Amino acid sequence: MKANQFIIIGLGRFGSSIGQELIRLGHEVLGVDRDEEKVQELSKIFTHAIVADATEEEVLRSIGARNFDCGVVAIGDDVEASILATILLQELGVKKVVAKAVSELHGRVLERMGVDRIIYPERDMGIRVAHQLVSPNLLDYIELSKQYTIAELAVPQCLSGQSLEDVNPRGRFGCSIVAINKPKGIIIAPAANDVLAEKDVMVVIGTNEQIEQFQHSLNK
Amino acid sequence: MKANQFIIIGLGRFGSSIGQELIRLGHEVLGVDRDEEKVQELSKIFTHAIVADATEEEVLRSIGARNFDCGVVAIGDDVEASILATILLQELGVKKVVAKAVSELHGRVLERMGVDRIIYPERDMGIRVAHQLVSPNLLDYIELSKQYTIAELAVPQCLSGQSLEDVNPRGRFGCSIVAINKPKGIIIAPAANDVLAEKDVMVVIGTNEQIEQFQHSLNK
Amino acid sequence: MKANQFIIIGLGRFGSSIGQELIRLGHEVLGVDRDEEKVQELSKIFTHAIVADATEEEVLRSIGARNFDCGVVAIGDDVEASILATILLQELGVKKVVAKAVSELHGRVLERMGVDRIIYPERDMGIRVAHQLVSPNLLDYIELSKQYTIAELAVPQCLSGQSLEDVNPRGRFGCSIVAINKPKGIIIAPAANDVLAEKDVMVVIGTNEQIEQFQHSLNK
Amino acid sequence: MKANQFIIIGLGRFGSSIGQELIRLGHEVLGVDRDEEKVQELSKIFTHAIVADATEEEVLRSIGARNFDCGVVAIGDDVEASILATILLQELGVKKVVAKAVSELHGRVLERMGVDRIIYPERDMGIRVAHQLVSPNLLDYIELSKQYTIAELAVPQCLSGQSLEDVNPRGRFGCSIVAINKPKGIIIAPAANDVLAEKDVMVVIGTNEQIEQFQHSLNK
Amino acid sequence: MKANQFIIIGLGRFGSSIGQELIRLGHEVLGVDRDEEKVQELSKIFTHAIVADATEEEVLRSIGARNFDCGVVAIGDDVEASILATILLQELGVKKVVAKAVSELHGRVLERMGVDRIIYPERDMGIRVAHQLVSPNLLDYIELSKQYTIAELAVPQCLSGQSLEDVNPRGRFGCSIVAINKPKGIIIAPAANDVLAEKDVMVVIGTNEQIEQFQHSLNK
Amino acid sequence: MKANQFIIIGLGRFGSSIGQELIRLGHEVLGVDRDEEKVQELSKIFTHAIVADATEEEVLRSIGARNFDCGVVAIGDDVEASILATILLQELGVKKVVAKAVSELHGRVLERMGVDRIIYPERDMGIRVAHQLVSPNLLDYIELSKQYTIAELAVPQCLSGQSLEDVNPRGRFGCSIVAINKPKGIIIAPAANDVLAEKDVMVVIGTNEQIEQFQHSLNK
Amino acid sequence: MKANQFIIIGLGRFGSSIGQELIRLGHEVLGVDRDEEKVQELSKIFTHAIVADATEEEVLRSIGARNFDCGVVAIGDDVEASILATILLQELGVKKVVAKAVSELHGRVLERMGVDRIIYPERDMGIRVAHQLVSPNLLDYIELSKQYTIAELAVPQCLSGQSLEDVNPRGRFGCSIVAINKPKGIIIAPAANDVLAEKDVMVVIGTNEQIEQFQHSLNK
Amino acid sequence: MKANQFIIIGLGRFGSSIGQELIRLGHEVLGVDRDEEKVQELSKIFTHAIVADATEEEVLRSIGARNFDCGVVAIGDDVEASILATILLQELGVKKVVAKAVSELHGRVLERMGVDRIIYPERDMGIRVAHQLVSPNLLDYIELSKQYTIAELAVPQCLSGQSLEDVNPRGRFGCSIVAINKPKGIIIAPAANDVLAEKDVMVVIGTNEQIEQFQHSLNK
Repeated sequence: MKANQFIIIGLGRFGSSIGQELIRLGHEVLGVDRDEEKVQELSKIFTHAIVADATEEEVLRSIGARNFDCGVVAIGDDVEASILATILLQELGVKKVVAKAVSELHGRVLERMGVDRIIYPERDMGIRVAHQLVSPNLLDYIELSKQYTIAELAVPQCLSGQSLEDVNPRGRFGCSIVAINKPKGIIIAPAANDVLAEKDVMVVIGTNEQIEQFQHSLNK
Repeated sequence: MKANQFIIIGLGRFGSSIGQELIRLGHEVLGVDRDEEKVQELSKIFTHAIVADATEEEVLRSIGARNFDCGVVAIGDDVEASILATILLQELGVKKVVAKAVSELHGRVLERMGVDRIIYPERDMGIRVAHQLVSPNLLDYIELSKQYTIAELAVPQCLSGQSLEDVNPRGRFGCSIVAINKPKGIIIAPAANDVLAEKDVMVVIGTNEQIEQFQHSLNK
Repeated sequence: MKANQFIIIGLGRFGSSIGQELIRLGHEVLGVDRDEEKVQELSKIFTHAIVADATEEEVLRSIGARNFDCGVVAIGDDVEASILATILLQELGVKKVVAKAVSELHGRVLERMGVDRIIYPERDMGIRVAHQLVSPNLLDYIELSKQYTIAELAVPQCLSGQSLEDVNPRGRFGCSIVAINKPKGIIIAPAANDVLAEKDVMVVIGTNEQIEQFQHSLNK
Repeated sequence: MKANQFIIIGLGRFGSSIGQELIRLGHEVLGVDRDEEKVQELSKIFTHAIVADATEEEVLRSIGARNFDCGVVAIGDDVEASILATILLQELGVKKVVAKAVSELHGRVLERMGVDRIIYPERDMGIRVAHQLVSPNLLDYIELSKQYTIAELAVPQCLSGQSLEDVNPRGRFGCSIVAINKPKGIIIAPAANDVLAEKDVMVVIGTNEQIEQFQHSLNK
Repeated sequence: MKANQFIIIGLGRFGSSIGQELIRLGHEVLGVDRDEEKVQELSKIFTHAIVADATEEEVLRSIGARNFDCGVVAIGDDVEASILATILLQELGVKKVVAKAVSELHGRVLERMGVDRIIYPERDMGIRVAHQLVSPNLLDYIELSKQYTIAELAVPQCLSGQSLEDVNPRGRFGCSIVAINKPKGIIIAPAANDVLAEKDVMVVIGTNEQIEQFQHSLNK
Repeated sequence: MKANQFIIIGLGRFGSSIGQELIRLGHEVLGVDRDEEKVQELSKIFTHAIVADATEEEVLRSIGARNFDCGVVAIGDDVEASILATILLQELGVKKVVAKAVSELHGRVLERMGVDRIIYPERDMGIRVAHQLVSPNLLDYIELSKQYTIAELAVPQCLSGQSLEDVNPRGRFGCSIVAINKPKGIIIAPAANDVLAEKDVMVVIGTNEQIEQFQHSLNK
Repeated sequence: MKANQFIIIGLGRFGSSIGQELIRLGHEVLGVDRDEEKVQELSKIFTHAIVADATEEEVLRSIGARNFDCGVVAIGDDVEASILATILLQELGVKKVVAKAVSELHGRVLERMGVDRIIYPERDMGIRVAHQLVSPNLLDYIELSKQYTIAELAVPQCLSGQSLEDVNPRGRFGCSIVAINKPKGIIIAPAANDVLAEKDVMVVIGTNEQIEQFQHSLNK
Repeated sequence: MKANQFIIIGLGRFGSSIGQELIRLGHEVLGVDRDEEKVQELSKIFTHAIVADATEEEVLRSIGARNFDCGVVAIGDDVEASILATILLQELGVKKVVAKAVSELHGRVLERMGVDRIIYPERDMGIRVAHQLVSPNLLDYIELSKQYTIAELAVPQCLSGQSLEDVNPRGRFGCSIVAINKPKGIIIAPAANDVLAEKDVMVVIGTNEQIEQFQHSLNK
């Protein structure tokens, strides 16, 4: 895999988390923030980190912004700085620009400016947390479509020792178990006589309603 | 499904997003914030929303905090308020208390105080965004374990018209396609002769390495 | 002439001056500002003036922003508010949106957002003042093109009593006097024997260089 | 032309625009501001630019303020600083002092102090913009007197191909076309058979009413 | 004696002291200040006291400023407000305007604006205090000219029981005792055999040098 | 005369005025203020001027405060600093401590602390100005007692050319002219046939009532 | 016992603690603070609590301050307010005035003003805590003199079951056990055969050195 | 006695007082505060004192926090900093951690975090002062239990010359005098014929009621 070059504007919790994961995944990251303390802290982790005002054209030009594969504008709450940094990255020729929006209106401005991807971290994370709060067995999930979901469900004590044939989610609710993650390893496309244990995790595909009913049966 | 009662302290972007999704899922939500404007805005959406200082015991007692199934402390940046609201919810007898942490140290205090779940929204969202940035086909994913992942991958143009037999990710990389989301509907446990099209989305299970190599082959 | 309907966001010196002149020209003006004092002062002069935050969609919708022929975003120094008010006017369907820019970068964002006209009042006024400072006889001017200018020049004492034939700017410098504004009235396309007096004002057309040389000859 | 020496106090958008235009016109400009950043930016463009407090007599004396031909007090919103800098320039013997006023009252103080010229940039620019907003064809204009105006009007599509004789503004409205600016060059005192085209610009002299009626006829 | 009408702008320690003394002397005083607390306190003492911004023309006009015999601008440290209130009083037609200056430059602006009298309370009081500090017997003094002073001197113990003939300041130093203030009453133009006592106060006229030498002799 | 040593705490307008006058009278002055700019300005005029916090014992001790003949606490508005600096000067053994009070209550604290003299500059100056405002001829005055005053009065035009016999203030009002200050010099104890001229200044002693009536007669 | 009347100025942690204990001991307390919230909270506990500025004479007079037996000035960190409130209580005739000092210098001012008792809560509590930190068995103590102390010591496990004769602190270290506090009750002047148990507390009198050596022997 | 090593976080009045007393008692103290001035002042008294932010793990680790016998978190009013510094000391392995709480809620958080001792200096000092205010003879006291107290009482004039037999507190009120502190030395377990004098101090043990009645009898 070829390492890509990322420039991240704004090194708050969100921006620094993106950068650190990109570094872990083997890419090159340049971090930019006005706050000297944040820069100093991340300069040990990122490829480079500099103290600069990313709303000044001269600054972005001098650090060669146009050579980056992707620019991430992760500025916290300063909508003006977010927009100005975004247009500078666009005009300097960064190939792909993604930006964090702090409100729907902010997002609409970024959209009109032609930003490649707009992220609402708090909103999206809030939705994810809400689902987990109402379904104690739900560990994580992917919304495949408005109707279909893949859910990662903890096997509750009451199912321990039962085979998939016993549990029979497909027959009773219509959703399928496509994998079981057991401490010893993953069973993909498990057979009807595979047996569940309490520490196992099931991967289930189905409509939202099917999965919700299956989950609901687990908590009884 | 029985509706649960949630109390959410702090109605910023994260807290309000949790509350709105809980309402959408059919639950009851009481929102609490010191900021009158935020409360007014959400009072039309939440079951209740009140202007109050959640670090004052009298206040939480008078709104019957102890009757709630779950308390969510989603206070933005005020670590002191977050900790004081948390201990009040705990001592008043809220069954389950989850709290947002703004730093690792904050999280460690919450842990020592016995909070049921600690959430780092910006950190977690940052990691998720980083993965999507480096894999343009990756729409979403679940980490099943340190090794195994379920990935939701967009079908690129180059695979359009090929059957699963042609693509053969299991044979070439070791990972399995457990579902294909097509505009017409989902195919669970697809057959070898099912054909991919450009707007389709594949659900793939495998080790991180297998999936990464599969993804990498898609971008060529 | 049909009266048009204008909405002006931001009632500082620039916005209030536009609004007052529009009223004087017989049009209808709705002024919007967060500052109660400014609104109160202008409410006697404008058709309407209201205290409101023009970055809130609800507010602009409720005052029927979409019915206006033209929206003027004249917000002083708050780039964020300027951009958010602008996108709201655009999305609500105001026919024509013009906006004040406080910097070139701000102007580029507005341009990318598709604003109909962008105004830089201080910059443009500064240029105009500079020209008048270096040419004491220059009262006002229009730049017709990069080369050609119409200048309004005060007749200096030294030309008093001379006929156009005597002064002969066309013969000596190449520029033409197309009108003379005399206390008694304007002479359009004056004849060669028309005589200049000290309180007269000449309207001259020519290249920048021709006019500059003519002006220069006046100050000797 | 002899280069004049200007001292500009206050390097905001207005002051810096004046200074840049004066430099472009071949004059010498010394800029003074308390803000180091502004000074640094303009020091590459102006003859000199220094960080100083222009309300301290010692400072102005030491930079030889009395040797300048003209002082421009372009201080933004600090009325006190504007007045104190003005009196210092006057007392140090600067030949001509012009000052920006931010309100009518401020202007009256400057007038009583004997300032040579008082400028209201936002007010004057607002009036100019208002005229252009109501007359889409109006590009620029000079008010020759309370009654007479020179207007620079874009030729609309409906007049394209018509001769001046056809259009006949003098006969129909009483105003005269004294010049036509065509892409190829300017025609001064055009003849009756000169033909208009869509990209042309007409220079018209007449009373306000005549020109307004002519403009109005263009938009039908 | 006819009561005069005074308007005092600025009710700090200086302005309120002037106003209280004027009331004590039988005149009418209207006090104006932005600070509600100060106004409330003085409204029991002054003829009238109102909370208002004296830099707004409407305000001064509505309280009938032009009917006052004298306006005192005693604004503490806000030079802008001092100047604007001053010009308003002048333009509204107040017969006499006196103003406090907080610096020499402020004073020069007021002078150029034609203020009738400019007062520097701290500077003048400082000079007066300095004189008393260096001459322990000096109670008060008037500078008649650069050379001559009237001094009010406490009679020290060493002179007690001596007649004016004994003390003989005229003979020894050249200055004259024109009055002796004794507990029982004042002796004007005292005779040579009038005797001094310790609680008496002498009024002495002479040159600065003469009085200084006389004072000096007292402290031995 | 022996030069005394003064330490002045607080170099605002009042403190710096005292210090400058003391220097002019030939004494030694050490100025102390926290504000570097004020200290720098006065260091050219005072014997010494240092930047220091006069509420810290170490500081005052290290500059040898106890060796000064007199300490003047002229701190502007910070009552706490005024009191703390005062007690330090007292405890360090400064021979005489005088202090400025900004309110009556402040003055009472200083009195209870045993300060040698308490000064109310704005209050005292306000009283003095009030007297001059109501008596246009009154140039200065000394209150000898509750009843008696010495007044310095400008000779009005109406008395020009009259002898003291003609004016006869003693006969008509009971007050005596003890000196006349004429451009050429002072006449002490003037004779009945001495004649007044318009530029002269009379020194009058009498009761307040007598002098007021005399003054009143001058303005008719 | 007769109930006394206390007025407490400043209702922070220290002042409110004094007031609550006085109430518990059966006395009457009037609390005064500028902070409405604090007053509201304590108004349920104190006899009265009012929102007022205790540095204004009118206020203290109107609440009848002079009728109180004792005034406590417990103002937190505002030295000026502390001093002004103190002098007002003194001058209004409160019988006894005690005040909290935040620094030694503050304390010296209060002393010079004749305050009856000056308290340094943080300093004194710090000293007390320091002693307990170095002696884990030390529960509390009274310093009788520079030499002698009464200490309240926890009986450590190693002494459990021993009689006073066995422990013999008088013989070994010179200090005496004057009482033993046992769960069942106190033994005053215990006998030699009284036996210690682990939950007991000894009251010991002796010199500091004797008690320190005794304590030291307990920790072995 | 072995010297212990203490680290004190927060060098306000309380923390610095603890540290100074620990030094006086012969222990080693490292002080930590963000405020340079406080650190500088105490660096002459403490073993070490450093400017640092004690909520940063790196900082505490680098100064070897884990080697200290006891950590004292004496941070003034910043609850967040107090909690974060506390958890860091705990996690770094400081043997014993004591912390100051500014409110009951703060104290409950610290308790839940497992802090070894929680101190409320203002509350405890307030209680102590209240007791002394209501009992003028009470110098100090220890609460042995809810019922029993040791009190240090000044001998009033009325008891001077009486023997313990005369005073007979045991017979009249039930409480015992266990020691008399006389100027010449302490008498432990005094005899019935020991005589009291006015400067003596009695140490009394008894129930609260007994001691209160005894005290009350002293003030008659």
